[in-house]
Amino acid sequence: LRNGYPEVIYCEGKTKEQIAGIMEKLLEKNSNILGTRLNEESYEYLKERFKDLEYHSMSRVMTLKVKEIEIKGKGEIAVVTAGTSDMYVAEEAAITAEFLGNKVIRIYDAGVAGIHRLLSKQDELRRCRVVIAVAGMEGALPSVLGGLVEVPVIAVPTSVGYGANFGGLSALLTMLNSCASGISVVNIDNGFGAGYLASTINRL
Amino acid sequence: LRNGYPEVIYCEGKTKEQIAGIMEKLLEKNSNILGTRLNEESYEYLKERFKDLEYHSMSRVMTLKVKEIEIKGKGEIAVVTAGTSDMYVAEEAAITAEFLGNKVIRIYDAGVAGIHRLLSKQDELRRCRVVIAVAGMEGALPSVLGGLVEVPVIAVPTSVGYGANFGGLSALLTMLNSCASGISVVNIDNGFGAGYLASTINRL
Amino acid sequence: LRNGYPEVIYCEGKTKEQIAGIMEKLLEKNSNILGTRLNEESYEYLKERFKDLEYHSMSRVMTLKVKEIEIKGKGEIAVVTAGTSDMYVAEEAAITAEFLGNKVIRIYDAGVAGIHRLLSKQDELRRCRVVIAVAGMEGALPSVLGGLVEVPVIAVPTSVGYGANFGGLSALLTMLNSCASGISVVNIDNGFGAGYLASTINRL
Amino acid sequence: LRNGYPEVIYCEGKTKEQIAGIMEKLLEKNSNILGTRLNEESYEYLKERFKDLEYHSMSRVMTLKVKEIEIKGKGEIAVVTAGTSDMYVAEEAAITAEFLGNKVIRIYDAGVAGIHRLLSKQDELRRCRVVIAVAGMEGALPSVLGGLVEVPVIAVPTSVGYGANFGGLSALLTMLNSCASGISVVNIDNGFGAGYLASTINRL
Amino acid sequence: LRNGYPEVIYCEGKTKEQIAGIMEKLLEKNSNILGTRLNEESYEYLKERFKDLEYHSMSRVMTLKVKEIEIKGKGEIAVVTAGTSDMYVAEEAAITAEFLGNKVIRIYDAGVAGIHRLLSKQDELRRCRVVIAVAGMEGALPSVLGGLVEVPVIAVPTSVGYGANFGGLSALLTMLNSCASGISVVNIDNGFGAGYLASTINRL
Amino acid sequence: LRNGYPEVIYCEGKTKEQIAGIMEKLLEKNSNILGTRLNEESYEYLKERFKDLEYHSMSRVMTLKVKEIEIKGKGEIAVVTAGTSDMYVAEEAAITAEFLGNKVIRIYDAGVAGIHRLLSKQDELRRCRVVIAVAGMEGALPSVLGGLVEVPVIAVPTSVGYGANFGGLSALLTMLNSCASGISVVNIDNGFGAGYLASTINRL
Amino acid sequence: LRNGYPEVIYCEGKTKEQIAGIMEKLLEKNSNILGTRLNEESYEYLKERFKDLEYHSMSRVMTLKVKEIEIKGKGEIAVVTAGTSDMYVAEEAAITAEFLGNKVIRIYDAGVAGIHRLLSKQDELRRCRVVIAVAGMEGALPSVLGGLVEVPVIAVPTSVGYGANFGGLSALLTMLNSCASGISVVNIDNGFGAGYLASTINRL
Amino acid sequence: LRNGYPEVIYCEGKTKEQIAGIMEKLLEKNSNILGTRLNEESYEYLKERFKDLEYHSMSRVMTLKVKEIEIKGKGEIAVVTAGTSDMYVAEEAAITAEFLGNKVIRIYDAGVAGIHRLLSKQDELRRCRVVIAVAGMEGALPSVLGGLVEVPVIAVPTSVGYGANFGGLSALLTMLNSCASGISVVNIDNGFGAGYLASTINRL
Ligand SMILES: Nc1ncnc2c1ncn2[C@@H]1O[C@H](COP(=O)(O)O)[C@@H](O)[C@H]1O
Ligand SMILES: Nc1ncnc2c1ncn2[C@@H]1O[C@H](COP(=O)(O)O)[C@@H](O)[C@H]1O
Ligand SMILES: Nc1ncnc2c1ncn2[C@@H]1O[C@H](COP(=O)(O)O)[C@@H](O)[C@H]1O
Ligand SMILES: Nc1ncnc2c1ncn2[C@@H]1O[C@H](COP(=O)(O)O)[C@@H](O)[C@H]1O
Ligand SMILES: [Mg+2]
Ligand SMILES: [Mg+2]
Ligand SMILES: [Mg+2]
Ligand SMILES: [Mg+2]
Ligand SMILES: [Mg+2]
Ligand SMILES: [Mg+2]
Ligand SMILES: [Mg+2]
Ligand SMILES: [Mg+2]
Repeated sequence: LRNGYPEVIYCEGKTKEQIAGIMEKLLEKNSNILGTRLNEESYEYLKERFKDLEYHSMSRVMTLKVKEIEIKGKGEIAVVTAGTSDMYVAEEAAITAEFLGNKVIRIYDAGVAGIHRLLSKQDELRRCRVVIAVAGMEGALPSVLGGLVEVPVIAVPTSVGYGANFGGLSALLTMLNSCASGISVVNIDNGFGAGYLASTINRL
Repeated sequence: LRNGYPEVIYCEGKTKEQIAGIMEKLLEKNSNILGTRLNEESYEYLKERFKDLEYHSMSRVMTLKVKEIEIKGKGEIAVVTAGTSDMYVAEEAAITAEFLGNKVIRIYDAGVAGIHRLLSKQDELRRCRVVIAVAGMEGALPSVLGGLVEVPVIAVPTSVGYGANFGGLSALLTMLNSCASGISVVNIDNGFGAGYLASTINRL
Repeated sequence: LRNGYPEVIYCEGKTKEQIAGIMEKLLEKNSNILGTRLNEESYEYLKERFKDLEYHSMSRVMTLKVKEIEIKGKGEIAVVTAGTSDMYVAEEAAITAEFLGNKVIRIYDAGVAGIHRLLSKQDELRRCRVVIAVAGMEGALPSVLGGLVEVPVIAVPTSVGYGANFGGLSALLTMLNSCASGISVVNIDNGFGAGYLASTINRL
Repeated sequence: LRNGYPEVIYCEGKTKEQIAGIMEKLLEKNSNILGTRLNEESYEYLKERFKDLEYHSMSRVMTLKVKEIEIKGKGEIAVVTAGTSDMYVAEEAAITAEFLGNKVIRIYDAGVAGIHRLLSKQDELRRCRVVIAVAGMEGALPSVLGGLVEVPVIAVPTSVGYGANFGGLSALLTMLNSCASGISVVNIDNGFGAGYLASTINRL
Repeated sequence: LRNGYPEVIYCEGKTKEQIAGIMEKLLEKNSNILGTRLNEESYEYLKERFKDLEYHSMSRVMTLKVKEIEIKGKGEIAVVTAGTSDMYVAEEAAITAEFLGNKVIRIYDAGVAGIHRLLSKQDELRRCRVVIAVAGMEGALPSVLGGLVEVPVIAVPTSVGYGANFGGLSALLTMLNSCASGISVVNIDNGFGAGYLASTINRL
Repeated sequence: LRNGYPEVIYCEGKTKEQIAGIMEKLLEKNSNILGTRLNEESYEYLKERFKDLEYHSMSRVMTLKVKEIEIKGKGEIAVVTAGTSDMYVAEEAAITAEFLGNKVIRIYDAGVAGIHRLLSKQDELRRCRVVIAVAGMEGALPSVLGGLVEVPVIAVPTSVGYGANFGGLSALLTMLNSCASGISVVNIDNGFGAGYLASTINRL
Repeated sequence: LRNGYPEVIYCEGKTKEQIAGIMEKLLEKNSNILGTRLNEESYEYLKERFKDLEYHSMSRVMTLKVKEIEIKGKGEIAVVTAGTSDMYVAEEAAITAEFLGNKVIRIYDAGVAGIHRLLSKQDELRRCRVVIAVAGMEGALPSVLGGLVEVPVIAVPTSVGYGANFGGLSALLTMLNSCASGISVVNIDNGFGAGYLASTINRL
Repeated sequence: LRNGYPEVIYCEGKTKEQIAGIMEKLLEKNSNILGTRLNEESYEYLKERFKDLEYHSMSRVMTLKVKEIEIKGKGEIAVVTAGTSDMYVAEEAAITAEFLGNKVIRIYDAGVAGIHRLLSKQDELRRCRVVIAVAGMEGALPSVLGGLVEVPVIAVPTSVGYGANFGGLSALLTMLNSCASGISVVNIDNGFGAGYLASTINRL
């Protein structure tokens, strides 16, 4: 399990039986459960055993709530994507942040090649306490966002693209080299990490 | 210059005359000035022209204060390094954060190969609102720190090392792949970026 | 075959018939046989032909004992993993070491993001003559272990992870750049190599 | 020499005597001469021998005009940079384009982290027939420009930056992966190539 | 959608239902539609819903014409490939260019290892206003073409090859380092980008 | 300082004053001192302050003995190099091992392109308890050695070479992929690490 | 088709119908045909149409002889492999060389970790006019061979291996950096290229 | 020293005294001596001690002849370069080949961006028994040459270039991926290796 308050299971590379076993232990502690990177097949197996289990197929996240989620974040978190293909990562971030007790605003498909769409969302963005910027291919979104807002921007490169994208490397390097300030970066496709960090910041 | 409050000059690749010109413009606005990556030679030139200019030779940062720095950060920021060789980056982060109105705690040479030194600092660390973790070579420090504290950890890889370090790549990849949560990463040697982001978070 | 005492077959890229042929030759020499990277399908074929053949599906190792294994290692070998997903490599190492005549202690899921779990195992670790440290993602485990024990630490990077993990490269570089001393590294996922080397050391 | 109309010398890796020899041959053909990547020392040597030789020290370009440059380009070419540090490449592009008979508009220091500066230049940009976009670090400028104009955008990555910039690789990959259309890329720091191509297009 | 005149859908990573939805919206605007990277299965689904839909299986492009395509390009565009295996990318470029209102000349399998075949096409090539050069493996074609023609050459590396080709990297680097002038490069396998840019140039 | 018995200073990136300071502290503990990667200039400074300081200029190692070195290693350690250019790393390893109380046998310039020279040393090699194999360029030496001896082989890649050597990467990858068993690898040019590990093994 | 004497088809990425079409054209010229990288399925299709077609399934080579192959090579060509897993590439080389009119000696599984097996083949090797050395993983074979023979050694890296092998990169770099002389390298897995070049040399 | 006939010293990384020592030993054997990668300073030292020593400053090769060189090569060797900047490598190859007893034809500055210059040399090229093709940047020369001649082509990538050239990597990959047959590759800048191999082939 990842360190910290709510209980999270990283399901990649675990058998469905292993996941079920972990879940049972967590339920004994009466804990809400978040599972990331769960495949369809394991979900089919788990939903038989855990009623109320929810599955978000785009982001491959499962959630099991045994008690209400308390809003602990002090403000809102914006999750912005460059394209629609980046949504699978954005949703992992958004659901994670919500599950950890935050209000989330979604602004999808606002990439920099059509800058006016992004500019039209400035009011919404400025209202937020943290911004998560999700982008693949050239990954330029966080740089523009960093110039528009005063709050921390968490950049998430995605593996969306082809060719000289090299599995997300292009977006990752773009983000690490951003000239805008107030930006930091998590691993390629790591929506969970971004949502968790945003929540940590939003509780401060 | 960068968006946001105080004025910052990135001096790398600028001539001393260009830097002086920018400083004069900023002084007209009665603004405190921070300059990063200033070389010795440019400093010699500038100190003739700007009295009260201070130079921090380890981190190659200059600061010029025309008015008192107001403490705006709500808590303390810890700057931790793995080795003594990482201090040039850590100081860039610490001075930046201080200049932007934050209290900074320095914990240097607390690398994971001697874990007990780090563990003995847990109380200090837990008092802080943000932790900046600076490490070269294997870059494992942020992962251990991420498990010890509940607050955001900003990981800064340094280019300290040799061989398969590949100019900081090893530490960068280590940090991006951290299993601990609440961690994000800035560019190799980017102490300024970490200090700035920490300050942004500490003002929330 | 690999050079040295017991007989080992690297099954990857060999047909099941080729493997069976090699095994027959080895049995004529009345030799115990270890096979690594054997797939399920080849195992199904081989178990028809070789009774007493054992298969360890997690590590994809097969073992065929025609005589008792003599304990030749002078002390114990610890096999430690950072996560549960690294177990497939750890088991390859552990079974190899046992097969070569060593006592093995397994300490799994003791990664550095939760350092206290690892610290609680110090007594067990210090009893061993060699430590094998298996980790994917950030690969920081061997560095911490290297600081805790005085004996040789064999670091095994795994390909567990995603994104900037680049198939195990991140953990590999971390380990090669370790600041702790007494550490050396084998290829990504090379549990066999680590188990064999540990055994070589334990016989000295 | 490069193929095509005016005469160009790539001076890198040539001795000053070799360059002088080539220039003499070209002057016999009564040709204007452009030299790129000429170092200061060679220039000192050449200016003794060729009066009217001009040297642009920022871009390290020399020009020798034996006859007036005819304007052959049908429209204007915009050269835009993200930062002031990218100017050495931008000037190589601009001087090349001018030398080949084009009118050039320079828009420098209009990077995407302060998007409003770029937006304020839209009228000027839309007047041009070709846009050259020069950027280092994250290299996001061409993507934004590609969305603002309908004409071809030639993207030039620069080696400006540090750390995960890897000598211009980050900006190069960003540009190759741009989501905007109408964009193509030349080699890192290849201002000449961009200026030449822009001129080729502007003559169509 | 990509910026600019006709409507283009990048189908990779979109579900067939998402694509159908976008198409319906575009048809309301009475727009011709081009779709790239459409898989067979999605096509089967779409052709039931949109009569007159055409599918080019080699290039995985779909086209839907609701009105005649007007020829807007002022001259011809040549699409040249090194091998027959590069045709899937070349056709994406050619169909894109045609769809955007250009006349296209195809010269396939004219790689530099048999230079005479290419030389025999010089007249055709010189008639064109833009040349698209498509090549995998060593990617030398654009360099030779750049020396033969005076017009812009758009180089498209393909992922055709194996071994040290590294998914198209070899051809990409070759093209970026071309000594010929008047050349620029798009992403690996990006036939669409080349066709679009060629059209943008051909309209000038 | 590092865990374990004698005191070691990694001098790279430390000022001469810092090194002197550390040495004084260590002398208070009456400890022998080993310093690696000490440059000539710092040595000149230190030898004024610490009499009996010895400097090994090829390997840039300094040693200061305040008491006799006790032989603690149970057998001999062989240090083998492929070429004479690898000696700077081999000597770092050998001096480290000797300083830590081991007998060392040096076999230099025994690369695999002239295999008979290596084969003629088999008796000497087989007498040792640990073998350190140092090689640059193609780095094939450890593989051959691994097949000749039954004891642990510590492979040290060096940065000797040019071109596709990429700063030692070629030798590093060769060694990590060795087919021989009983081999493990340390960082490029890390003679110290190899000598230390060899000593750790030789004490078992 | 390739320059030179016999007719060769590179079947990868061609449909079975395309291959059949090419073969029919070649048969009209009464030419023997060699096809490389032919998959099983295409073979099934082709053997119905071309009687006397032979298929070598390990190397995925097909051969169709319409006339006797004349021995044109002046001496013998040795094809040596490090492991049995490298045989698929070695056979592509051997069959190519035989098809082009050469006598071929096969020495398989003679890798450098067991150097004595290779040394026992010296007489055979020294009889040859060209040596093809095929190896994956550490790729050290050509270096040792280069020291044993006076004739040209063609090194073929294979993609056999895992982890830090990076798809054959490790063996490729090893071979390019060989200290032995008289060695050159072809692409990873390019048995055909090695066989063809060996034949070209053997005809001189 | 290397296997085979004349004596060769690789001077890089050797002190001038070491080189002089080796030379004296070789002179006792009455051997001609070739030294590569000798710097100016060492040459100044050596020429005092060895009269008749010749130094070729462009290629940094020294030669010392104590007896006439016998022509042992059966035909001529062509050394071709793409640009004039590649000459330093080409001369290393040419001088090596001449020193080993071969006639050499030099064809410099015949790169593929101006293909007609190369085509005009076809007669000369076809007369040779081996062709050495030296090129930096895009490295396309060997592919074109491979299509023009029937004899072995040895491709030598050079480190000439900048940006995405990555120290010769671009030319290296181009050459390894060549579609022409009869081509093999040596290390970046390895003129010596190419000259030696050409000589080995020319003696067959
Ligand atoms: N050490 C640093 N690393 C990265 N960015 C910096 C650093 N110091 C300053 N900066 C930022 O880089 C920007 C460079 O833009 P300019 O000063 O216009 O060239 C400045 O606005 C700073 O915000
Ligand atoms: N040549 C070397 N390469 C790698 N590590 C070294 C070398 N020399 C010393 N070390 C280790 O690196 C550590 C650096 O820590 P410090 O001296 O605190 O900066 C020392 O404790 C040594 O154990
Ligand atoms: N296995 C192989 N690896 C590399 N090149 C090959 C191989 N087999 C054939 N070739 C060459 O690759 C060329 C491909 O051209 P094509 O057949 O026109 O696609 C052929 O003419 C062959 O000379
Ligand atoms: N320029 C060069 N590049 C690569 N290898 C070379 C070069 N010059 C000489 N050599 C070889 O490199 C070997 C180096 O061995 P050594 O002289 O013992 O260090 C020599 O024997 C030469 O055969
Ligand atoms: Mg901001
Ligand atoms: Mg934490
Ligand atoms: Mg230890
Ligand atoms: Mg546009
Ligand atoms: Mg041209
Ligand atoms: Mg062994
Ligand atoms: Mg040889
Ligand atoms: Mg040929």
